[in-house]
Formats: sequence, structure tokens, C-alpha cells
Amino acid sequence: MFPGAAAARADAAYALVGAPLDASTSFEPGARFGPDRVRRYAEAFDDYDHRTDRHFSELSVYDHGDIGPTADTEEYLTYLRGTCGDLREEGAVPLLVGGEHTVTVAGVRAADPDVFVCLDAHLDLRESYAGDPLSHATVTRHALDVADRAVVLGARTGSEAEWERASEADVTVVDPADVADWEPDFDADESAYLSVDIDGFDPAYAPGTGTKEPFGIEPREGRRVVREVAPHAAGFDVVEVNDRDDGQAAVLAAKLLRAFVYSHAADR
Amino acid sequence: MFPGAAAARADAAYALVGAPLDASTSFEPGARFGPDRVRRYAEAFDDYDHRTDRHFSELSVYDHGDIGPTADTEEYLTYLRGTCGDLREEGAVPLLVGGEHTVTVAGVRAADPDVFVCLDAHLDLRESYAGDPLSHATVTRHALDVADRAVVLGARTGSEAEWERASEADVTVVDPADVADWEPDFDADESAYLSVDIDGFDPAYAPGTGTKEPFGIEPREGRRVVREVAPHAAGFDVVEVNDRDDGQAAVLAAKLLRAFVYSHAADR
Amino acid sequence: MFPGAAAARADAAYALVGAPLDASTSFEPGARFGPDRVRRYAEAFDDYDHRTDRHFSELSVYDHGDIGPTADTEEYLTYLRGTCGDLREEGAVPLLVGGEHTVTVAGVRAADPDVFVCLDAHLDLRESYAGDPLSHATVTRHALDVADRAVVLGARTGSEAEWERASEADVTVVDPADVADWEPDFDADESAYLSVDIDGFDPAYAPGTGTKEPFGIEPREGRRVVREVAPHAAGFDVVEVNDRDDGQAAVLAAKLLRAFVYSHAADR
Amino acid sequence: MFPGAAAARADAAYALVGAPLDASTSFEPGARFGPDRVRRYAEAFDDYDHRTDRHFSELSVYDHGDIGPTADTEEYLTYLRGTCGDLREEGAVPLLVGGEHTVTVAGVRAADPDVFVCLDAHLDLRESYAGDPLSHATVTRHALDVADRAVVLGARTGSEAEWERASEADVTVVDPADVADWEPDFDADESAYLSVDIDGFDPAYAPGTGTKEPFGIEPREGRRVVREVAPHAAGFDVVEVNDRDDGQAAVLAAKLLRAFVYSHAADR
Amino acid sequence: MFPGAAAARADAAYALVGAPLDASTSFEPGARFGPDRVRRYAEAFDDYDHRTDRHFSELSVYDHGDIGPTADTEEYLTYLRGTCGDLREEGAVPLLVGGEHTVTVAGVRAADPDVFVCLDAHLDLRESYAGDPLSHATVTRHALDVADRAVVLGARTGSEAEWERASEADVTVVDPADVADWEPDFDADESAYLSVDIDGFDPAYAPGTGTKEPFGIEPREGRRVVREVAPHAAGFDVVEVNDRDDGQAAVLAAKLLRAFVYSHAADR
Amino acid sequence: MFPGAAAARADAAYALVGAPLDASTSFEPGARFGPDRVRRYAEAFDDYDHRTDRHFSELSVYDHGDIGPTADTEEYLTYLRGTCGDLREEGAVPLLVGGEHTVTVAGVRAADPDVFVCLDAHLDLRESYAGDPLSHATVTRHALDVADRAVVLGARTGSEAEWERASEADVTVVDPADVADWEPDFDADESAYLSVDIDGFDPAYAPGTGTKEPFGIEPREGRRVVREVAPHAAGFDVVEVNDRDDGQAAVLAAKLLRAFVYSHAADR
Ligand SMILES: [Mn+2]
Ligand SMILES: [Mn+2]
Ligand SMILES: [Mn+2]
Ligand SMILES: [Mn+2]
Ligand SMILES: [Mn+2]
Ligand SMILES: [Mn+2]
Ligand SMILES: [Mn+2]
Ligand SMILES: [Mn+2]
Ligand SMILES: [Mn+2]
Ligand SMILES: [Mn+2]
Ligand SMILES: [Mn+2]
Ligand SMILES: [Mn+2]
Repeated sequence: MFPGAAAARADAAYALVGAPLDASTSFEPGARFGPDRVRRYAEAFDDYDHRTDRHFSELSVYDHGDIGPTADTEEYLTYLRGTCGDLREEGAVPLLVGGEHTVTVAGVRAADPDVFVCLDAHLDLRESYAGDPLSHATVTRHALDVADRAVVLGARTGSEAEWERASEADVTVVDPADVADWEPDFDADESAYLSVDIDGFDPAYAPGTGTKEPFGIEPREGRRVVREVAPHAAGFDVVEVNDRDDGQAAVLAAKLLRAFVYSHAADR
Repeated sequence: MFPGAAAARADAAYALVGAPLDASTSFEPGARFGPDRVRRYAEAFDDYDHRTDRHFSELSVYDHGDIGPTADTEEYLTYLRGTCGDLREEGAVPLLVGGEHTVTVAGVRAADPDVFVCLDAHLDLRESYAGDPLSHATVTRHALDVADRAVVLGARTGSEAEWERASEADVTVVDPADVADWEPDFDADESAYLSVDIDGFDPAYAPGTGTKEPFGIEPREGRRVVREVAPHAAGFDVVEVNDRDDGQAAVLAAKLLRAFVYSHAADR
Repeated sequence: MFPGAAAARADAAYALVGAPLDASTSFEPGARFGPDRVRRYAEAFDDYDHRTDRHFSELSVYDHGDIGPTADTEEYLTYLRGTCGDLREEGAVPLLVGGEHTVTVAGVRAADPDVFVCLDAHLDLRESYAGDPLSHATVTRHALDVADRAVVLGARTGSEAEWERASEADVTVVDPADVADWEPDFDADESAYLSVDIDGFDPAYAPGTGTKEPFGIEPREGRRVVREVAPHAAGFDVVEVNDRDDGQAAVLAAKLLRAFVYSHAADR
Repeated sequence: MFPGAAAARADAAYALVGAPLDASTSFEPGARFGPDRVRRYAEAFDDYDHRTDRHFSELSVYDHGDIGPTADTEEYLTYLRGTCGDLREEGAVPLLVGGEHTVTVAGVRAADPDVFVCLDAHLDLRESYAGDPLSHATVTRHALDVADRAVVLGARTGSEAEWERASEADVTVVDPADVADWEPDFDADESAYLSVDIDGFDPAYAPGTGTKEPFGIEPREGRRVVREVAPHAAGFDVVEVNDRDDGQAAVLAAKLLRAFVYSHAADR
Repeated sequence: MFPGAAAARADAAYALVGAPLDASTSFEPGARFGPDRVRRYAEAFDDYDHRTDRHFSELSVYDHGDIGPTADTEEYLTYLRGTCGDLREEGAVPLLVGGEHTVTVAGVRAADPDVFVCLDAHLDLRESYAGDPLSHATVTRHALDVADRAVVLGARTGSEAEWERASEADVTVVDPADVADWEPDFDADESAYLSVDIDGFDPAYAPGTGTKEPFGIEPREGRRVVREVAPHAAGFDVVEVNDRDDGQAAVLAAKLLRAFVYSHAADR
Repeated sequence: MFPGAAAARADAAYALVGAPLDASTSFEPGARFGPDRVRRYAEAFDDYDHRTDRHFSELSVYDHGDIGPTADTEEYLTYLRGTCGDLREEGAVPLLVGGEHTVTVAGVRAADPDVFVCLDAHLDLRESYAGDPLSHATVTRHALDVADRAVVLGARTGSEAEWERASEADVTVVDPADVADWEPDFDADESAYLSVDIDGFDPAYAPGTGTKEPFGIEPREGRRVVREVAPHAAGFDVVEVNDRDDGQAAVLAAKLLRAFVYSHAADR
């Protein structure tokens, strides 16, 4: 159980779902241990948040446990989307903890947002990767099947085709150097979905991820994004944390998940 | 290149093929780094083998490099089998270096042996695993589609259904404690295929593998098996080495691959 | 939850209790992560045991979770003993997973055995260690406050005073080289308690422990002891596993815990 | 011996004392290896400091070695305080190297400062933690028994009660984002004590610490604090470095200890 | 092969040469694994660079493989310089991947630049180190035998004698804090050589290096230097990456090598 | 200081000398950290040895500290030999702790034994290696310049030339499988020197060494050799321990060093 996430499902305002998919990780695998690591490295946190003056354990967070992957990723995503959908109908905001970025597809489909906001080193705008239309490198494209537009913060690499796709009107790419100045411009009635691929951060802060990409954003920049977007968000995930570092990636992911909950709750 | 494997393809008596498949690893992933690790930890070996009085570099070993997996495992195995088949037709004995055990299916199909001999902690006799008919846990069953019988040395665990399948006449299971006394009983005209799943060894000797299973065999026991079976073998593989230890699994795998070549060559 | 330990408390024949005490570890700390590691490395095991023809998940094992240490070790042991006592009264055999060896004191007090059987590199017969009467190095002495005699298998080191104490009639020390030949000599009505300090094994098999002591026993030797003692045992623990290796200690501990349950159950 | 700390006790202007206490570490233990690691990672440093134009080895630093913990922390702190007091009377500024933050209590009691300045992610203002009145989480409160006021730089988390205590007049909390602008405001006759809990820094710079807390300060910010406070300081410590990273925490701690000595010496 | 460096030698515009020298590393060895690590961690990179609108694989980069060290470093450097010289004559810009910094001596001698530009924590201006005139700590001095002047960016430590040497007219030292503002002032006809000692970066970004020195530069600062200097450069190297981290140093080094190639090529 | 080695030089019966040479390590470096690791992992040992009924701290062992290498290995060996010689003249048996095997050359030259006994995976009978006549791979040959004969226990690999040299009358090679049965056959007046290259043991027991070679001996076999040879020995060393494992190699090395002292002392 994520520390402090002791609410019963029936009472949940937030529902954490571990999604340890680790099928299409291109380079260093281990994202399957992400949910475990994120829960574990949250153990040393204080329950209380000074900024919002709230206790995490009083914010009705329910830990649904993990939903283990099956051999067929499409099937898995369908099941995961179903769970997220059920949780939303029961009144809880889903908080997915990956696992590879692909699990976001389930979260987005369940949340059906207007805007997809993503922290990521990669554009993830491929149509397929290594022959796989459900690879982690296709997430933003899948998200755009659901959302009207996407904002990719911290992106610094992609194929030529991805950058071309990114130049279209429905995609906004914010260079890592500009993330500090980015302000959301959501309409009052726009709903968002926030996805944090931990590789959006510089590898110094999150070495435990499958495809490290230098020159990334800093933790406080990412936290500000989370705080700004959370009040608009119908769903959240943090993904691509693996067990190949000394805890840096997991502890950052755990903090950002909590930042999302505190900020979302403070706004209600 | 595996140290000493400098023969040209045209001159190859043995052809090493890296097969970094890492798709169905159930627990700790990283088998994709197996070929790399095995080549690297062979760097400190002497070229000369005192027992057979031969130099590895003079045994016409060709390193074909790695064949990278695609998203569809069946396709990948077909391609890999094709390559192994080509190499065999050109006169080379294929030496697969995994990757997960599943790659053995390609090697066995290409070699078409009478007997499938396997060092493994696991029976690998499932029909499918986690919904996947091409999981590492199904290898021996796939091998039995090709070979007349299977000998699984060092096996110490399996599902109830696997043990039932193992009790049939075409499967011989040799308990780890009995491996030291096992003698091959091949007919003169029987061809064999030898597959070494590194988890057949006790985790002390090969901690870097996806599903550690204590109470395994010792390196000298495994080496004796390799030496005895090699002269009969039409193909060889060593699989399930990952990068999650301090080199023990890789250095053992590299030695066994060399032991196979020395013994096979000495017998020709 | 330990894989397969899904029984409800009310139905429990065995009750696993995590006891992550890590207060008096003399050298390399981390025993607090033992319960976590042991549960995690059991994930890749087959549910079925061929030798006893049983499924672990059908043996009514309940996972009580962890009981977190408090600053005062005596208090903690009292609480832990209370829980173990309650579980025993409810009909379950307690299976403690340490944590440092000190937690055994609680298990033994709750089980009140006639004989204390221990696998350990150390005699653990001190009266106190570094000024601490509840150090891991005093466990056997505390056990002898409860049990009539102690058998320490695999012990190979101790202070002069400990060896003197060990020479008394109520202590039997079995050198690592003699463990393979040891046979229990319990009277029909004698009850035992079995404690496995993972450092009884050679560091090759269990490097992740606080005070590695070379020249230890082998896993199959230890497994035989577990199998022989289990039918007589009123309680069991496995302790001193930490997170400072590549999983070898945890996977061995998990196997031994399962061996205890299978053998105990097979005998009922 | 810390490299360059070759002065005899009788000649010491600074006295390094290793204090490997590791009793109340809440999450990842290993602070006991801090003194060892800090000394070791200082080996590659140049003796000469360009900014102050001094050689470390000429600044009369004496390495007293480690004072090993006993089971009773209060006793240990009393002994440690005694040693620090003796060293101060002999004319040396004590430089404690932890071990957990609790050892600061001894250093502060010996130095008896007017102001307690601390770099720390945590407020450490608890009255007790997990039932322990001498936990690392109580350090600032203990310091306030001695000093008139406390300045906690980089603090970003605490319990609600700690934040309430922090709002009183004798505590100044400087948010990580404001540390770069902080200026000491010591009166001419005020003496200070400087304590560096390495977790005040972002985990990217010091992953090897017991309770990583993201969003911390940067090394140059911390170094400026050390340089500014050193001339006023009657004692110094650097704590909470463990062995669970690749040397980042230790090398930073070693540099800050040297920065303290250079700046303190330059001011004399 | 470095990913994308598939050009034939005859067609090479750039020639990567691995130089795994690891003889004089003062503290933590392992630089010999640098070329391997750098190639491996480049595997996850996109081929396409958005800023320069180029594909790395189309820039005619040839991977020459590694040139293994011999016992006599002077001989080795002579041989390495010969290879670099040959490659230059054939029209390729040499890209050395260390190995310890000493290999730069070969690169500089072959390129014969007017200005030696170096990112480094250390001045490397010693005449010898530990009795060795070809130590990594003497690189800049050797470079000044060839070049008219040296610019050392990010330098923050050295012996007193090195700082004195650095104060002469032909050496410019740029403090880490000033690297962001540094602008090259090359004459139109001046040729440069760019050497990146990865320890110029803060250890957070490159922990896997032999002598970590805190308070270093940030990756984007270093990347800007690479981009600015590349168009003027006749040779490039990146050195001092070892295998003692979780990939941070190697992935940064690989990125900088690619940044050099993209910027150099864009300028042609 | 090695735990318990608190004797003053003047009183020394044994003198431990750290020799962190790490110049010619062919594969994985780090032997320079051997002395440190060996001392550290001895910390958890009991002072008392039950077999010989002695306390280590009462056996007059003096820890001379480390003698740091210089750039010129020949010079270094000369100096090291001088120190060992001095210690011998003062009545102490030198106990070298490597560092690479090359340091043995100094120990043997100082001890001037009749028989050189060595535990090693490698013959170390080369005349030079990679152009280096003072490589670790030449140790036995150098020893034979001093001793009349050499016994290499556990050797399992070498070049063809080395095996030829090994077939001469003054070299006895004992296969790992035969080490358990080997008995020394020293004449009454023959003096021996015992050198333990930790890679003689199977990598399971000592993964932290530069060139792992599977199929090695077991710890108790090595311990018996140490116990048998010690009474005849004028010098001892244990070498090739590095920091690339979880302590297994160091703890075994430390035990063997102590076994040597206990057995040597018991015989006096
Ligand atoms: Mn992504
Ligand atoms: Mn990404
Ligand atoms: Mn298998
Ligand atoms: Mn297997
Ligand atoms: Mn014990
Ligand atoms: Mn023990
Ligand atoms: Mn603190
Ligand atoms: Mn803190
Ligand atoms: Mn340098
Ligand atoms: Mn440098
Ligand atoms: Mn040797
Ligand atoms: Mn050797």
C-alpha cells in the first residue's frame, strides 16, 4: 500500500493503481518494479503538507494494488481502462503508477480529457515502434485519439516523423529550457489528463528509467507543472520508473504523485 | 565479437548468434543484455584449452552478432530459425546466446534433433504461460514438437500439469542431486540439441538470471554434461543470463559455450 | 503478501509475520528489508511442490503483514510475542520473517518448545553484546530460558565464553561439515522450534546478510534440516536477510519457509 | 585518516571525530559507514584550495578516528560530548562526521552556541520519533535546549506539530528556493554551530542518505552557507551519509567539511 | 559500434576511436570500460536531431573500434596518435572515447590545434603525477606543447603549482559558475581541439568517473560549449567515463559526442 | 587497522602490509581497494578461534598500513620487498594484502622460500603479459627465480606456453578437483611461501576479483591448504580482491589471513 493511501474503495477520492507493464521498454527494462519502488520510497515522507496544510492520509486515497500485465498488451490496456473507468464512475480520480508509458493509454481512454499534458523527454508520437503499435513510443499519438490537443513538456528528442507530427496545431512542445515559464491556458470547461514520464527529468534526478535522455528538466520545474495542472485534471499517472538506480527516480515519482493529490484536493 | 570468434562466415564450423529476446521474462528482466555480458566476460579467458589441447581461436568460430527481437515473438523466432538453418546448411553448428529461453525454440527447430537435452531449474513444459504460448516456460514442450524425447537435467520445479507431462515416456527428469551420475544413452545415430538455461545452476553460481531457483547444480556437474553431450549435438544454446549480478552468470555461460566448442571439436 | 499466502486469519494453519527489526545488527544493516525481499523473491516460484504433491496456496497460509519495530526492543518483542501467541491460540503455526535474529526471542517465547533448533554461523550465546542484552548475538541464550536444550547447526564462530557455554549439556553444536549427517533425536512428545539464521549458509548462497561468515553449509543441507525438523516444530522463523545482494539470500529464505510449510503440512 | 588530517592531537586546530551512530535511521540504514566513506572519497582531492590560498594539510587538522556507538544512545552522546568538550578545551574545533543526525546533539552540547544553523530537508523538531526521544528527527529541538535560536536552511518537510514549533520566534526556516539569497545576521558576539544533514541537498547530489527528500538545494548553495557561517562557528558536523550510492553523498560531504575548515581558517 | 556510426572508413567524415586506457586513474578505476558504456548507452537515442535537422547515421561517422592499451603508455599514445593522424589525413575528424584523460595527448598531437579547449574539473597542468609524466593529471600541460593556448572550462581544483601555471598568459581558466557566460574568441584561422573530461560536470550528472569533484557544471552548459567550439575543432574527445554508476556518465558523454558531430556537420 | 592487529611494530610476530597495486589488472580493475575491503569485512569476526583456542588479538599482529604504488612497478616492488625484509629481520612474518598478484613478487623475494605454494585459477607462468614483464600473470615465474619449486593449487587455465612450463619438474599443478586430496610434502628444513590469489576459489565464493574463472575450489578446501602450509611458511599473502561484489571475496580473504595466523601461531 502506498503510505497513507488507506481509504476504502467506497470512500475513495483518489485511486492509485499499479500498472507494472514492462513489455516494450526499448533499452533498460525493470519498469515492472515501478509500482513497488514508488510505494516503498514514499515510506519516509511526512504525512503532512505544509503548503496546502493537509494530511495525505486524510485525502481519501485508496490503493487498488497492482493490475498485472497479460501477454496481450491490447487486452491488458482494455482491462486497465475498464478498472480506471469503474473507479472514475465511483467518484475517484485514477492515479496510475507504471510500468512503461503505454499504460497511459488506458488512463487517458478512461478519463477522456480535452487536453493531454505530458512531461516527457520523448515526443511519443510514433505510429508504431519496432513493429508495435502499442509501444511506449506511441503514447501521445494514442492520447490524441482521445484528447483534442497535447502539450508535451520537456520533450527533447523524437524521430523526424514525430517532429513533423508535433508541428501540427494540436501539439504543443515545450523545450526543457522553457518549462519553467510555461503556463497552462486551459479554458474553464476543459478537462486535462496529466502524465509524468519520469524521463522528462534530467537523468541526475531520475537515473532509474529505461531510456535516459540528458538535458532534462529539474524537479521543481516538474512539480510546478503538476501543481498547476492538477486542479484541471481528470486523471494522473507517473511512469517509467525502474529499479536500476539508488531510489532517485522512485522517490521523485512518489513526491509528484503526492503533489498531484495535494494540489487537486486543495482546489476542490 | 566473442573473444576468439574471428572466423569468417564462409569458414565457420561454429556460428555464435546473439538472441537478446526479453519479452516473457516473468520476474527480473534483463536477459536482453545476455549476449553482451557473455561476450564481455569471456575477455579474460585464455585462448588455449589444456584438456583438449586446442586454441579456441583456431576452431573456426564465427560471431554473427545479435539478431534483435521484434514485437511479434513468433515472427522473431521464425527469422531466427531461418538464420540458424542457413548457418547449418553452410556447415556451421549454431551457438545461440540468449536472451530468454524462448529463443531455444528457433534453435531446436533449425537443428531438428532426435533428443532435446536441457539444463534447467524448470520443466518448461507448459502449454502457455500468462496467456503466452511462446513464453520461456513452454520451451521443452515446443522442443518435443521437434525431438522424440527430452532430458531435463537439474529440474526442480514446475506446475502440477508440467510434472504430469514430465511423467510421460518421452521426458526424463534428472533431479539436481542426480545430475552428477547421469550418463547420456544416445543411440549411435541419434542427434541431440543441448540447451543450457543458466538457472539450472544454483543461484550462488548464476545469480544474474530472471527466476532464481535455489538448490541447483554445480558448475562442474554442468560442465560434464556439456562435455558429454557436445559430441552428439547439432546445436547449442545458453540462455537466461541477465545483467543483475556481478558477472557470475555471464562468466559461467561463456565458459560453458567454450566447453561445448572444445568438446565438440575434439570429437570430430 | 507472500505469494500464495492468501488464507484469511480465521482459516490460517500457518501465519507469516514480518518482523523488520534492525536495531542491533553489528555490521551491515538492512535486515529491516528482509520481509519485503523474501516476499518479493518468492514471486517466481511455482505454487506446486512435487515432493509432497501439494500446492502452497492450499495450505492455509495467512500473511499477517509486518509488525514494525519501536524504539524499545523489549517492548517490541513483547508485542510480537503477543501476536505470535494469539496466532497459535487461533490454531496457526507462526512463521516469522526477520529482521535481525533477535525477533526469534518472541517466536520462541510464544511457542514454548522443548528443543530450540537453529541454523546459524554464530553461537548467539552471549549474555549481552555491545551492552545490549537483547542483541542478535544473545538469541540462543534467550531461547534456553524457554527450551530445555538447543541444537545449533552450522555454527563456526563465537567468543570464548560462548564456546564454554556451548560445551554444557543443554547445547549441541554441529559443525558445518557435520550438518549433512545430523539426525534429529526428538522424543515423541518433544516439541521444537526451528530458527534459520540465513548466515548459517555459506556467503556464496546468502551474501545479503549482516555478518557474513565463510565456510558455511550448503542449501540442500539446510533444506534437509528444515524438512526433518518441521514435523516436530511449533514455530519457525527465517532471519537476517538484508537487501545488500542480488537476491540470493532472499530467494533461499523464501524457499526454506516454503519447505517448512510443505513438510509440516505433509506430516499432519 | 581523513586525507591531510595528519596533525597531532596536541597541535590540533580542528579535530575530526567519526560518529558512526546508525540506530534510529528510519528508512535506509547505513549511516554507520558515513565516516569511512567520507574519508575515502576525500582521497582524490587536491590539498590546495585556490580561493583561500591554503593547503589543507597545513591547517592543523587532527583525525581522532571513530567513536563507536553503544547500545544506549544517551550514554553514547554523553561520551561523544565529553570528547568534543575535551577537544574544544584543548583548542580544537570539533568536526563530527556522522552517522545519523542524532550525533549533532553531542556536538551542540559541547559547543554551546548561541545560534544553531542547520542544512536539512527536515525540520527535526519532533519531541520524539517512534517512541524515541533521541531520534534523528529531534535534533533541532535538542539543539534549541542549548542555543537561543535555530536556522534551518533547505527544510521542506515536517509534521504539522513540527511546523507549528517552527513558526515560533526562535526558529527560522529557509525554503530551499530561498537558500541562495539567505544571509547570516549574527551579532558580533554570537557563536554558531553548523550542522549539515546531507539530505538537505537534492537527492541527485546526495542519493546515499537514509531518507531522500526531493526538491532540495544545490551544492554551490550549500557551500556558500558553509563559507558564510564557518567564521562564526564553534563546531561543525556533516551527517546522514550512507553507503547506498556511487559516492556522490560522501564526496559532497567531504568537500563541505573541507570548505568549512578553509573558510574558518581563512578568517582567523 | 556506436549506434549510427556505420560509415566505412573510406567514407568517414568522423572517426570514433575507443581508447580504453586505464593506467594512471588515481582513485576509482574502470575508465577502460568507457568506450563500451558510451556506445551502449547511445542505443536508445533517436537518430534524428531536431535542432540541426540532421540524422546522425547520415553524417558519415565511422567507428574504428577500440585500440587496446599496452603496458608502455608512451608507446600506446604514439600508436594512437598515428591512427588519429591517419584518419585525419583520410579526411575524418577523430572522435576519441576514453579511457583516462591521458589519451587526449594522442588526439591533440594528431590534430595540432592552435587552441586547446577542455571541459574539466581539474587543471591537469602537472608536470608529472605520482612519478608519472604521462598521468591524466598532466594532459593540459602536454596539450600546451602543441597548442598556443588552453582554455579550461569548469576547472575548480589543482595543486598550487598548477594554479601558478594556470595564471600564465597562455591558460584561461573559467570557473564553473562562469561557464554559462563564456564565449569563444577564436580568430578566423585558429583551429581548436575540444576535450571533454566528464568530471567537469557535477557528480550528480556523471557519478561514474574516477575522481568526482563536486560543484561542477550542468549538462546544458557543457552542451553549449560543445556546440560553440565544434565548428572550429579539428579533433574531439570525451574521457574519464567509467562503469561505476547507473549509466549517467555514459549517456551524457554519448550525447555530447553526438552534439559535437551535429554542430560540426551543420557548420560545414 | 585490521581488527585485532593492534600490536606495535616492535612486538610484532606478524606484520600485515596493504599493497594496493592495481596496474596490470587485465579485466575488471579495483584490486587497489582490496586492503580496505579485507580490513573492513573482518570487523564482524570473533576474536577467538575455537579450533586453536586462541585470540587473534593476542597473536601479536601488527598492521603496517598500506604502501601506495608508484608509477614504476619495479621500483614499487623493490620498496615493498625492502619493507617486508625489514619486518622479517625484526622477527615478524609478513602478511601482504593485495592489490594485484604482482605484489607477491616482493613478498617472495623478501621471504626467500624453498617452495612457493600458490592457490590460483591461473598458472601465472608467463614471461610477460601485454608487454609487461611485471604483470600479475607472471608471478609464479618470478617466484621460481627465488624458490626451488612451485605448487599451484586450483589452477585451471593458462596459455600453451604456460602449460609447457608447468610440465617441468619444478612445477606441480593441482587440478581444482584434486585440491581436497593434496598433502604437502615439505622436507623438514624446507621453508615455504603461501600466496592466495582469491580467484583460485569458484566465482560464487569470490566474485569480486579481476578475472573470474569458473570451476574453482571451495572455501573449506582452501582453508585446509592454508592450515597445512602455514606452519612451514615464512611469508603469506592474499591478493586480487576488488570492490566489485557484495563483500564475498573480502570476507573470505580476511578469514584465510586469520586462518594462516592461527595455524602458524599454533605450531610455534
Ligand atoms: Mn514516454
Ligand atoms: Mn520518455
Ligand atoms: Mn528455461
Ligand atoms: Mn529456467
Ligand atoms: Mn544469529
Ligand atoms: Mn548469525
Ligand atoms: Mn536531520
Ligand atoms: Mn534530514
Ligand atoms: Mn582531466
Ligand atoms: Mn578531471
Ligand atoms: Mn594470480
Ligand atoms: Mn588468478
